[in-house]
Amino acid sequence: MAGKVFFGVTMSLDGFIAPVADVTVAEVFSPEGKDDPRVQTWLRKWGELQAWLFPQRSFRENLKLGEGGEEGLDDEVSRATMERIGANVMGKRMFDGGELAWPEEAPFHTPVYVVTHTEREPWERPGGTTFYFVNDGIESALFQAREAAGDLDVRISGGAETIQQYLNAGLVDEFSISLSPVLLGNGIRLFDHVDADRIALEQARTDASSQVTHLTYAVSKR
Amino acid sequence: MAGKVFFGVTMSLDGFIAPVADVTVAEVFSPEGKDDPRVQTWLRKWGELQAWLFPQRSFRENLKLGEGGEEGLDDEVSRATMERIGANVMGKRMFDGGELAWPEEAPFHTPVYVVTHTEREPWERPGGTTFYFVNDGIESALFQAREAAGDLDVRISGGAETIQQYLNAGLVDEFSISLSPVLLGNGIRLFDHVDADRIALEQARTDASSQVTHLTYAVSKR
Repeated sequence: MAGKVFFGVTMSLDGFIAPVADVTVAEVFSPEGKDDPRVQTWLRKWGELQAWLFPQRSFRENLKLGEGGEEGLDDEVSRATMERIGANVMGKRMFDGGELAWPEEAPFHTPVYVVTHTEREPWERPGGTTFYFVNDGIESALFQAREAAGDLDVRISGGAETIQQYLNAGLVDEFSISLSPVLLGNGIRLFDHVDADRIALEQARTDASSQVTHLTYAVSKR
Repeated sequence: MAGKVFFGVTMSLDGFIAPVADVTVAEVFSPEGKDDPRVQTWLRKWGELQAWLFPQRSFRENLKLGEGGEEGLDDEVSRATMERIGANVMGKRMFDGGELAWPEEAPFHTPVYVVTHTEREPWERPGGTTFYFVNDGIESALFQAREAAGDLDVRISGGAETIQQYLNAGLVDEFSISLSPVLLGNGIRLFDHVDADRIALEQARTDASSQVTHLTYAVSKR
């Protein structure tokens, strides 16, 4: 078990990884959603935040959106991130939203450990994704994910609260932020509730394309 | 008058340009300050945020801190920023704090236009800095600064509120953020109160040293 524990997110320049949560995923995906101004605003902001990612070939392949796509630095970063992952860990809220949003072939292709109070049998999807529901806390979920990942890395997929819990527990080795040239004004902050005084960062790597800057930091306790 | 209007700040990865303002500049510089734990915390956090800047040769020269200093990319960025400035604009709060903190030879070496309700005669310092006190608003201060700067650029020096006012008024052409690998947890946010829906950014340039990433964005209205 030599893999690293990391997270990777797209963040706006003002610190948000998602627009304000005044709409639910169910509303976004409901037939009425497309006429709801709150949904329209949410989707516009989400689209601006993730604008760098959607056209990438690796992203399109992973979601089976069709042939083609961009193949520059941003694609390399996106592809390298997917290829390093041997298992994912996510929070209940991300799973609940994703269950409505993901295609049948969920876009993970690894075991996924969901930290939740819900008891449920493993849920196997076509394409190699199986969701396991872990009821005894974040450390147990991570332990199982590391076992499953072997020499590959474990990604803390999200959401923000789950990432914050793992950061505060000192269980994250490094993280990557794709910093979008966007101001959202409000939304879900990546670093809310993080115990800043106990986390030391070292800038490990910076890669900039014309549209986004990918920042990687090594994490240690202090 | 071909110069640009810009600001340049050091920001923590969680979005702060200064630690939480629970101490005043007067307290920091008072003889009792050095024994006050709030002052000690403030200074520690400020030092971590600005750690990349203090050792640079150009910074040391500008504040007459003595010979030597680092001369790599970070020094080039710091020096280039100083050399492009023909005039500065700052808010009353930054001036009031600076009046206590700056050495007699204030570190601007240009005309400085202070947006304030205080009426006061121009205050000339050795080394080329003269403070002018502007009582009729941010547009007037900028107009005077542009006149004084000629072909050079105008820097909106700070603080955060003043930067936000100029951003919201559509008067900033570009800005640079030196993104420090530091989490402060709380403090003064760069982008609070910014009207995000009306500001479009384009990533203009990214330069990374081993310790900090310098990001430059072009600003337009939308």
